[in-house]
Amino acid sequence: MQDRYEIDSLKEESSRRNFFKKSFLYSAAALATIGSATQLNAEYQINPNNLPPHNPDWGLKWGRDNNSEPYGMPSRFEKHVVRREVPWLTADKKASVSFTPWQDLKGIIVPNGLHFTRCHGGVIDINPKEYRLLIHGLVEKEVVLTLEDIKRYPSISVIHSFECAANNGMEFRGPGMDSLQVTHGMLACSEWTGVPLKTILEDIGLKPEAKWMFPEGSDPAGVGRSIPIEKVLDDAMLVYAQNGEALRPEQGYPIRLFLPGWEGVMQVKWLKRLKFDTKSWMVREESTKYTMLMKDGHAMMYNWAFEANSVITSPCPERNWVGQKKGPIMVEGIAWSGKGTITHVDVSTDGGKTWKEAKFTSIQLPKAVTRFALKIDWDGKPMLLQSRATDDTGFTQPTATQINAARGKEAVYHRNAIQTWEVKSNGEVHNVHIYEA
Amino acid sequence: MQDRYEIDSLKEESSRRNFFKKSFLYSAAALATIGSATQLNAEYQINPNNLPPHNPDWGLKWGRDNNSEPYGMPSRFEKHVVRREVPWLTADKKASVSFTPWQDLKGIIVPNGLHFTRCHGGVIDINPKEYRLLIHGLVEKEVVLTLEDIKRYPSISVIHSFECAANNGMEFRGPGMDSLQVTHGMLACSEWTGVPLKTILEDIGLKPEAKWMFPEGSDPAGVGRSIPIEKVLDDAMLVYAQNGEALRPEQGYPIRLFLPGWEGVMQVKWLKRLKFDTKSWMVREESTKYTMLMKDGHAMMYNWAFEANSVITSPCPERNWVGQKKGPIMVEGIAWSGKGTITHVDVSTDGGKTWKEAKFTSIQLPKAVTRFALKIDWDGKPMLLQSRATDDTGFTQPTATQINAARGKEAVYHRNAIQTWEVKSNGEVHNVHIYEA
Repeated sequence: MQDRYEIDSLKEESSRRNFFKKSFLYSAAALATIGSATQLNAEYQINPNNLPPHNPDWGLKWGRDNNSEPYGMPSRFEKHVVRREVPWLTADKKASVSFTPWQDLKGIIVPNGLHFTRCHGGVIDINPKEYRLLIHGLVEKEVVLTLEDIKRYPSISVIHSFECAANNGMEFRGPGMDSLQVTHGMLACSEWTGVPLKTILEDIGLKPEAKWMFPEGSDPAGVGRSIPIEKVLDDAMLVYAQNGEALRPEQGYPIRLFLPGWEGVMQVKWLKRLKFDTKSWMVREESTKYTMLMKDGHAMMYNWAFEANSVITSPCPERNWVGQKKGPIMVEGIAWSGKGTITHVDVSTDGGKTWKEAKFTSIQLPKAVTRFALKIDWDGKPMLLQSRATDDTGFTQPTATQINAARGKEAVYHRNAIQTWEVKSNGEVHNVHIYEA
Repeated sequence: MQDRYEIDSLKEESSRRNFFKKSFLYSAAALATIGSATQLNAEYQINPNNLPPHNPDWGLKWGRDNNSEPYGMPSRFEKHVVRREVPWLTADKKASVSFTPWQDLKGIIVPNGLHFTRCHGGVIDINPKEYRLLIHGLVEKEVVLTLEDIKRYPSISVIHSFECAANNGMEFRGPGMDSLQVTHGMLACSEWTGVPLKTILEDIGLKPEAKWMFPEGSDPAGVGRSIPIEKVLDDAMLVYAQNGEALRPEQGYPIRLFLPGWEGVMQVKWLKRLKFDTKSWMVREESTKYTMLMKDGHAMMYNWAFEANSVITSPCPERNWVGQKKGPIMVEGIAWSGKGTITHVDVSTDGGKTWKEAKFTSIQLPKAVTRFALKIDWDGKPMLLQSRATDDTGFTQPTATQINAARGKEAVYHRNAIQTWEVKSNGEVHNVHIYEA
């Protein structure tokens, strides 16, 4: 160790070229092909008339104190990047939804302050010292755990997407608002830290006849859902941290249930109790709500995991190409699946007649958002932009025609049809649907 | 597609068991062994006297409005989780450092609001519409780019750690403050989005005689460093987003240079220009500053990439075990390397005499923070806790004795020695050093 330490660390300068041979080329090897394969043309990149190169004041006066914000905030020039509600969509400001501004985001991690929120009785305020979790029913030993009890169990940290069952749901009836934030903003992706439920159940003992778990929240709506025991023992977690820090109040502080890839409403916030039993409960959130009304009048229950989905984030209605120069330009988007890893994304500029394979521009993880991009040559003519994702289960997104043929117009939930953005010759972008004959 | 779509998506209920067979078990397969292998004993987990299970008020009154915070903030019970400065450490509040509170963090992603900050002339405030980047010197075509020009290039998103060269530097002279936040708080880890410099240079043309790049910041300190062309063409990026949203002002909004695994000071913030030349510049930040003063009076320059490092985050001086019950308990920590992927972490409870292999509890990525944990059985006796990381270059952290023998006490930078926390029988944790004879 000593030898290696002295040689490599202290003689860095002379062994610089050796270092480059040794280093693992994460970005270059895995991702940078998007660059070399698709670099743009200097002809339009350069603005030689844009001198002076910067505001002449910069560098001539002190900035604000280094730690003037002990908990830092975005630049004052980014104040438009916020969650938004659609006032007419819900009856009340307590039981409503705010949307993630995907049109302003990059990468796969969504900052906690911008993760969409869906509450049924408002954001409740729990003192972590008063927090208790009851685990009862078909377990060997019924227990009440404090937050410290839960945190003393071994934890894991995993990167996964998080989606509301109603994401994109307004599109069943036809093109909705001209807004990516509204069409696909009930989606986020974070690193989640907590305890696998399996660990706790191995500790307190699960009776063999237990087939379902009922999690209930501390909120006034008493949100709860029936969870099959297979999912509980597969990858369900009690999470207390999101992107490194404590879970936010609007995400269930101090503890929420986490079910990778499944409907958000099942992942109960401000978790109060877990009950184990032989049968499911048929509660409100899985009977009159969160069931899919099909064409024949029946409602489908227990559709839990999200299939593969994707949407183009640039351009989009809020981030259009008005004033954009013609020529080579990047089409960017996100793809995700609740059942596996995204393996392939195609992009069409002609409403699905022809397709080109996009490149991945982020890490690809199971049950997580993945970034893709494709360079196109925009001649300024109108386009019908679409993306189409496939995951490693082999599933590919359906068209709007296919999903409406299968589910009708009132299903509301789990809509993952190919989204079409119409790009006009003036660069405006609108939400449209294409129905095949 | 249509068939698969109807079968899997619409007949979920009946095919539930098939789903479980098909799904990729990310958490379970990769990580959950930490749980089953180390689950704790219910004897001390359960507090049956802790009834009632929750505050009886919860659930009886509405919470606050769902979107009362369009840009959300942590719970009011987490106000202690902030970046902190050490007032006597730097002469000025403009040229100072604030530290990441690792004692309060989980996972590998550090929220942007808690990422440590190091400024030499304060946090400057740039209007992105006025921003310009000059690229000049040994390039085929000298250019001035706007922010939109840079964003029009193909981007990638990568998860990497970020560290100041002086992280842990105060420990060269012996045990410093009783604070993980101070000993290792000049470290963070984020998802970064931007353009590989290679892409831009392929576009504008790099002359073959260009061997070094000089990035200069817009701040009043005019921070700059000489970067070897190999790193520029390997994985250097111009980044404009961090953890999904725009780079924060204290991190260089709107554009900073990013050099995965290398010293933070080289990754110039508020980037004003990039100059290419045949020789390095020997500027202040690589001559009188950021060089390592060795025992013989010489100073070592150009020590860029960080070797493997690690530290235990729980327990630590700020998160001690006062009042903690004896018995099985998790020791948790972080490991990272600027040269590759962490492959192995050992933990010692006896000051390095014996070691046990820890388990990874997060994803392991190159040049990124990785989480590890080990279950120990604490009998309440004093311990000397240590962690020791190895990366895929084969490098293992040195001891305090080894690093001082090699570098003396005044090197300041790149200290990655094994850190020792003394755990007293009352649960207090202190920063100590162990020097072998």
